[in-house]
Amino acid sequence: MKRRTEELAIFGGRPLFSAPRPTGQFNTPDVDAYIAQLREIYGRRWLTNNGHCVHELETILAEFHGTRHCIALTNAATGMMMLVQTVAGADPGEIIMPALAYRGLPHFARWAGHAPKFADVDLATHTLAPAAVRAALSRRTRCILGMPSFTSVGHIDALCDIATKAGVPIVFDSVDAVACTHKGRITGGFGAAEVFSLHASKLVNAFEGGYVTTNDDDLAESLRRQRDFNHPGTAPSLQHGASFVIGTNAKLNELHAALALLSFSGINDRIKDNQARYEAYAVSLSGVSAVSLLPYDAPAGEKRNFRAVIVKLEAAWPLTAAQTLGVLNAEGAAARPYFDPPLHRLKPWSTDCAADDLPITDAISGRFLQLPVGEMTSHEDIGEICGVLRLISQNGARIAAGLKGGA
Amino acid sequence: MKRRTEELAIFGGRPLFSAPRPTGQFNTPDVDAYIAQLREIYGRRWLTNNGHCVHELETILAEFHGTRHCIALTNAATGMMMLVQTVAGADPGEIIMPALAYRGLPHFARWAGHAPKFADVDLATHTLAPAAVRAALSRRTRCILGMPSFTSVGHIDALCDIATKAGVPIVFDSVDAVACTHKGRITGGFGAAEVFSLHASKLVNAFEGGYVTTNDDDLAESLRRQRDFNHPGTAPSLQHGASFVIGTNAKLNELHAALALLSFSGINDRIKDNQARYEAYAVSLSGVSAVSLLPYDAPAGEKRNFRAVIVKLEAAWPLTAAQTLGVLNAEGAAARPYFDPPLHRLKPWSTDCAADDLPITDAISGRFLQLPVGEMTSHEDIGEICGVLRLISQNGARIAAGLKGGA
Repeated sequence: MKRRTEELAIFGGRPLFSAPRPTGQFNTPDVDAYIAQLREIYGRRWLTNNGHCVHELETILAEFHGTRHCIALTNAATGMMMLVQTVAGADPGEIIMPALAYRGLPHFARWAGHAPKFADVDLATHTLAPAAVRAALSRRTRCILGMPSFTSVGHIDALCDIATKAGVPIVFDSVDAVACTHKGRITGGFGAAEVFSLHASKLVNAFEGGYVTTNDDDLAESLRRQRDFNHPGTAPSLQHGASFVIGTNAKLNELHAALALLSFSGINDRIKDNQARYEAYAVSLSGVSAVSLLPYDAPAGEKRNFRAVIVKLEAAWPLTAAQTLGVLNAEGAAARPYFDPPLHRLKPWSTDCAADDLPITDAISGRFLQLPVGEMTSHEDIGEICGVLRLISQNGARIAAGLKGGA
Repeated sequence: MKRRTEELAIFGGRPLFSAPRPTGQFNTPDVDAYIAQLREIYGRRWLTNNGHCVHELETILAEFHGTRHCIALTNAATGMMMLVQTVAGADPGEIIMPALAYRGLPHFARWAGHAPKFADVDLATHTLAPAAVRAALSRRTRCILGMPSFTSVGHIDALCDIATKAGVPIVFDSVDAVACTHKGRITGGFGAAEVFSLHASKLVNAFEGGYVTTNDDDLAESLRRQRDFNHPGTAPSLQHGASFVIGTNAKLNELHAALALLSFSGINDRIKDNQARYEAYAVSLSGVSAVSLLPYDAPAGEKRNFRAVIVKLEAAWPLTAAQTLGVLNAEGAAARPYFDPPLHRLKPWSTDCAADDLPITDAISGRFLQLPVGEMTSHEDIGEICGVLRLISQNGARIAAGLKGGA
């Protein structure tokens, strides 16, 4: 445990970790089990295009999410592009979305031929505020794109109500809400569709990959067509009735589907491990002033995945968020900004936004950090990381001066 | 060898092949070598985002193509979308392309915000005819998108000249021209950029994957930014100077890059095997009337990859192309149409085209077939397939009558 300012790596001390401790999950399915799968895939010589593992994965995930359809894809980004393009239609307009969000969101809107329209979030959930969405609606609105935060699924019902009343579709980037519930219902079947990721940093790890869940048969068929340029391919349901869609190559490969299946089988244990790490952070941070864990918004009976640990830097915290990241990163604790800068402060999206459009987003951004989690961060590591935060909390003025002095 | 009409599988005979013989390469790198790579990837825990194998692959491919840059991507389709969007710009216009082409081409144009403008091919090379491209140019032209055919790289120099004089960029979908030369120069460095595929059916097999080659430093940097939403990520060259691009997640994964490296190492042997199979077809078809091999357009000193076997059905051939495919497919010979229907005959692209716009394309389409090739098709198989073609050639009227009779 580092106890003196001079021991900090940023001032020349020995870093805590030689291998970085990341903010992603990075669980790796058992290599021998994966290799056994791989030999079977080789043996079948059915490598892409709706293979055995892809089919099994889609079946298992649809069951898990309680939806009629799961469409496995190259990655979540391609799923969002295809989904927004489909539900928002061809007439150029606006996609309402949060700015305290994944950097890809406005890109998806632009690929689909639309402009992002940022709406503010609320202070409690860090997700789209229903009143802000209502205010953002116009005749140019083509779609609402909601995104659960790490710690809350947000106002799903209220947003869906707004969408229904306004007659616009709503979809969710639910990458961070796998295995979470809203009013007792698991994510996956809300709005027109939800998009999930199978990236290595996520709860289910296929190294890369993503999928869309939906209860809309027509939308599911459209997305299946789109992932292979409207080609009927090997999907029997698509052999007839060739309504046109603009597509791309977005097929998930057997290599990834096999990994996803192995990783998915451990999801409940992983959530327990995540929760234990979250609680270890809570214990270690309990005596540290001016920094607090962002709690998971989990009313009784609701499920959360605990996949991220977010801390709030209070007004009395002696360093800026960027300085704090600098100190932690030097130690090999690969802590990351929390949606900072928010999207409406980034070019080119910033040009359309007035400076005071999103006061809550601006207030949140820069006051929070993501701390290391996942399989590569032990409870001992967590103790060390919190020790550094305690050191900052207790010697803030000295550290701030040292950083200014050109460390 | 099937010698009697009744032996044909389509009339109830036993199929030649229990496992289909495909038209793709489907070479599979040695599974044990791949597994060794996989254990190293697991050990490094660097799974995505510009990993070791991706970096090595990009270096090797840039060297192979003689270009300053190679940008590895999820697949060739995403590369084409990003490339067309970048070089064609945001002002909506037209992308000149062949209609005797891969079904994805007009989709790429549409994702980039433009419309496809089909130009005719020439009869010898099956690639864009320079005169047709010149006639298709207008103030709405934003880019020329050329595509080598299986058997010819086409009029690369002439097309580049046209593009330069017209002041519009030209790019190539060179998926079928890996390892081919034009006037002694290997493909990869022509036009603004070229796109290649690492799909399982292609010469270099990463199960899925693709890449762009270019000598344009700015274009390369833009594509590197685009493959991860303009995020600097782990590419040091992108840490500074953040010009904006619309991007997506198009990062190639270590799983695929490792396979590509293994598959690439055998490319020269594979081309020799392809040529031997091509010659086996030539020998077996030599006595069969009204069907002929489409020759590779290979002037002295030029290299070709022989990765496809295309046959022409002459006017005297007794069956339609679709009927011939029916007979072959029933045998387990997974022969495929040759760009039939051509893109200008497909909705929605067909609505903008006059019926007689592309006479050469229409004349070619429906007169050619792709026959089985690659690692899964032996020389013995080739003899059997050609035996079926001989049977059709010799008993055409009877077979045609049998098919009409409702076989």
